Amino acid sequence: MGDVQTYELRPIGRVRSPLTDRGAAPKQGDEGAPPASIAISPEFAEAMADLEVGATVIVLTWLHEGDRTVLSVHPRDDVTRPLTGVFSTRSPDRPNPVGLHVVTITGVDGTTLAVRDLEAVDGTPVIDIKPVLGPER
Amino acid sequence: MGDVQTYELRPIGRVRSPLTDRGAAPKQGDEGAPPASIAISPEFAEAMADLEVGATVIVLTWLHEGDRTVLSVHPRDDVTRPLTGVFSTRSPDRPNPVGLHVVTITGVDGTTLAVRDLEAVDGTPVIDIKPVLGPER
Repeated sequence: MGDVQTYELRPIGRVRSPLTDRGAAPKQGDEGAPPASIAISPEFAEAMADLEVGATVIVLTWLHEGDRTVLSVHPRDDVTRPLTGVFSTRSPDRPNPVGLHVVTITGVDGTTLAVRDLEAVDGTPVIDIKPVLGPER
Repeated sequence: MGDVQTYELRPIGRVRSPLTDRGAAPKQGDEGAPPASIAISPEFAEAMADLEVGATVIVLTWLHEGDRTVLSVHPRDDVTRPLTGVFSTRSPDRPNPVGLHVVTITGVDGTTLAVRDLEAVDGTPVIDIKPVLGPER
């Protein structure tokens, strides 16, 4: 049967980064991502108005180069490791390739956020930004 | 201008929970969510094959009852708190209402996962499952 209802994601902005090649990008943000920024579409200025320099936030991206037909992978592209179901991995190849990135805001200029530890390639769509801690807000 | 390119989310399963009313649901999973389960569509069995009882995972949902036009809210519906941009809150009302839930797997039965600390209402679409820790896999 499957689930016929689908939903439409509308990007709220884009990653701007010197990283342009998925193969060369670090697997995780704390493995050497260069400084990057998030260009948020001006229509969402109100939604980002309370983001502050120094805050650590969760950035959700759509890993648009991911292969959505992949259901298992060799973790970290290491073929000596057994095939593993993608829901147990961080593979960008998965049915809904949403990326989660814990980043620190280092600057705010209009609707552009400068950030540290964001490993996504240039042009990656950003779909949401959330606080790291749940209960407070 | 805005970002015209959109992306299609296809649910990989659904939340099954005694919670049926968004208003009555706890705001966060550690605030008293009842035991729940995730019914994963059989076509994604391979992707979930390595999820194990006892594992803590991140479940991503699509909060389909969220109001996507909302850009700022009074945090936790407390009108004495100032309006806050939704990217600084966990409000389910936001441009792309993706929910993040840190849950513990308490059972696996075929393609159904029993879980603890999942506060989403019954029928909520599940879009992805990821390990909590990044670097290992």
